[in-house]
Amino acid sequence: MSRPDALPALLRRALRDDADGGALCAAYSGGADSTALLHALAALPEARARGLRALHVDHGLHADSAAWAAHCADFCRALDVPCTVARVAVARDAGLGPEAAARHARYAAFADALGGGERLLLAHHRDDQVETVLLKLLRGAGPEGLGGMRARRPLGRGALWRPLLELPREALRAYAAAHGLPCIDDPSNADVRLARNRLRHEILPRLTAHWPQAADSIAHSAALCRAAADALRQEWQAALGTLRDAATGSLDAAGWLALPPALREPLLDHWLHAQGVPAPTWAQRRQIERQCAARPGQLPCIRWPGAELHVWKGRLWARRPAPAVDPGWSAAWTGEPLPLPDGGELRLEPPARLAAPLAVRLRRGGERIRPAGDRHTRELRDLFQQAALPPWRRAACPLLYEGDELIAVAGHWLSERAEAIFHAAGARPRWRPGR
Amino acid sequence: MSRPDALPALLRRALRDDADGGALCAAYSGGADSTALLHALAALPEARARGLRALHVDHGLHADSAAWAAHCADFCRALDVPCTVARVAVARDAGLGPEAAARHARYAAFADALGGGERLLLAHHRDDQVETVLLKLLRGAGPEGLGGMRARRPLGRGALWRPLLELPREALRAYAAAHGLPCIDDPSNADVRLARNRLRHEILPRLTAHWPQAADSIAHSAALCRAAADALRQEWQAALGTLRDAATGSLDAAGWLALPPALREPLLDHWLHAQGVPAPTWAQRRQIERQCAARPGQLPCIRWPGAELHVWKGRLWARRPAPAVDPGWSAAWTGEPLPLPDGGELRLEPPARLAAPLAVRLRRGGERIRPAGDRHTRELRDLFQQAALPPWRRAACPLLYEGDELIAVAGHWLSERAEAIFHAAGARPRWRPGR
Repeated sequence: MSRPDALPALLRRALRDDADGGALCAAYSGGADSTALLHALAALPEARARGLRALHVDHGLHADSAAWAAHCADFCRALDVPCTVARVAVARDAGLGPEAAARHARYAAFADALGGGERLLLAHHRDDQVETVLLKLLRGAGPEGLGGMRARRPLGRGALWRPLLELPREALRAYAAAHGLPCIDDPSNADVRLARNRLRHEILPRLTAHWPQAADSIAHSAALCRAAADALRQEWQAALGTLRDAATGSLDAAGWLALPPALREPLLDHWLHAQGVPAPTWAQRRQIERQCAARPGQLPCIRWPGAELHVWKGRLWARRPAPAVDPGWSAAWTGEPLPLPDGGELRLEPPARLAAPLAVRLRRGGERIRPAGDRHTRELRDLFQQAALPPWRRAACPLLYEGDELIAVAGHWLSERAEAIFHAAGARPRWRPGR
Repeated sequence: MSRPDALPALLRRALRDDADGGALCAAYSGGADSTALLHALAALPEARARGLRALHVDHGLHADSAAWAAHCADFCRALDVPCTVARVAVARDAGLGPEAAARHARYAAFADALGGGERLLLAHHRDDQVETVLLKLLRGAGPEGLGGMRARRPLGRGALWRPLLELPREALRAYAAAHGLPCIDDPSNADVRLARNRLRHEILPRLTAHWPQAADSIAHSAALCRAAADALRQEWQAALGTLRDAATGSLDAAGWLALPPALREPLLDHWLHAQGVPAPTWAQRRQIERQCAARPGQLPCIRWPGAELHVWKGRLWARRPAPAVDPGWSAAWTGEPLPLPDGGELRLEPPARLAAPLAVRLRRGGERIRPAGDRHTRELRDLFQQAALPPWRRAACPLLYEGDELIAVAGHWLSERAEAIFHAAGARPRWRPGR
């Protein structure tokens, strides 16, 4: 099993079967696995003929990361393979763990870097797959998650490709050893505090001692789970088309709750993922289901790291958690694009300039306005309610003042005075809420 | 979590939700879990009102098993619960492991013992479920197997019911301790050579140390897998109806191979199980798929413990492996039911007696017979071929001789002489092949 030629043999077969043949780009971290993959590809004329290049992502998380990037560039030069180094900023405040945040940034860089039809080759192998499956099991995932990593999926303008998912780790290590390849030993790999490494160093060796076929069996279970998830996907995709409102992205709560669990769970995961929101735990799912039956007056919100899910007006609304907005925030505005404290923006459409600055403030409660053409002043609370503006967006809605008088609420309600001002400027205020 | 009243509280809820209310029978091994279940049931008037009784299966595998049965009968007497002891014979030669053979015999006894609509309550708890799921994963199972044990399924004239599948083991142990219940400590439970015990003592404690929610998460994954398997079941059941030949039980090989994997795998498992044949491993499945494309002249046979799967005439044929048949076997026969060496039987229909004994022998090769009304003698090989008698049944097909002359092949081909003999007896020979 650990013959060093298993890797090139598998790659030759994989490239032969990859008929439509886009360009090849090897993801190259400098670690043992991706070094072996890149080196083996560089030795294959059929890979070079497809414009083989390498992509190194520098996460900037470690003091040595620039040195690692230089090492990778050197190694590629020695192989005569073009190398791109993409430096990314890992968001530390997104409510994700550090590993998840780094992965997020890495895949965004991958997606950016790929040309049309280009394939990004990743060195994930059978034992990575087994760890992924066990981690999913330890999070209570269903067949979709237990299916582990997919061999192929679209990414940016190209596609991601993991041709080594059936190859044991030892085959990659044997190749690296046989060719004396220089590898970066990322210290996080030895850090048993990370879940993946706990499995690798504490659990899997014990499983394998008693069940020598454990890794293959788990990989096979994953393949069966992927097959089941694929068969069910058609059904929940059809349901998603019906339940999701294209304009707001919100989901019909009762309709979702009425689905059989085999469709309900993956539909929710997919809907959340499309909005950049991570999957909830089992307990959070049960909470979402219970809250779907909330009475009209209630406004339930279920939170988990990186997520905020509201049940409002019989629909589910998900978003990444926004930082709290300071109600004392204010700004002077003459029409230029104005960043709002929740990440949203106020601007004029078409771009224009006001004759005199207005003050932009946020809601504190009790505000009233008399919309043009209306005989009465209205409470903002009632206007928001009627316009079905989600409550979690109201705190960052820009209120426009002339002196102490509220003359416009974003572009939604304008007093006669505001109509005159914007008519003179030849433009209308437009508000894009933050996430 | 380990409060001793968790068990009775759960049972009260379960009995309240079990609306149609058949009689209750607790499976009672004498171990800690089933002792706690039985004791808690005996304390519930609503269980007594449903004719609560206990069933102990004595496997006869251990020197103390009779003493255990006596202990169980005593405990039931003390609780004033009627107790049945079923003594079973565990087949040691069925090609199954000892645990599987014991389980097989136990469930057969359960099925026999149940009255119409009666519920057999089993004490399987959350941690049993988790072990089951991990064992399935270590065998490469798909969503059906990863779904673990079902809470309910039909059994004999009644139904099996596992009301404690969400209760941690410690809740049962806390109940047993609080009530000072006497339990049999089956020594096999401490035997780490058994797979289940390896998981319980070596793997799960380490998982739980790092992932305190591991057991709950795995149980949740199982629930999602059950939901997916249930959703897919409808589809493969419809396919099975088309692909399976009711007369022979065989399966259309090409049709099966053309199914999507998500249906192919559970359909095969179900088809095998219905014939008393255990599930194959992943490697054996791939072998079956490859052999489905065998050329007409070939007769592939895939074997695994407890199973023999033939690909013949474009169909799959499965059976439990039969012991090799001694071609030198012979017997004198005057019409009484005659056991054949493969477990089959030869008899007369209707029951009758021949005037003079015939010799029954088996095939050795090259035999010929002239069927009544035929101008030529025929080779047995050609007759078998034409009649589509599966090759693996031919060795045990009874050949009837008068002196040295072959006069009948089971009831399939009779010479003129045989026609006269059986006409005189007023009966026909009938052959039932062994499994």
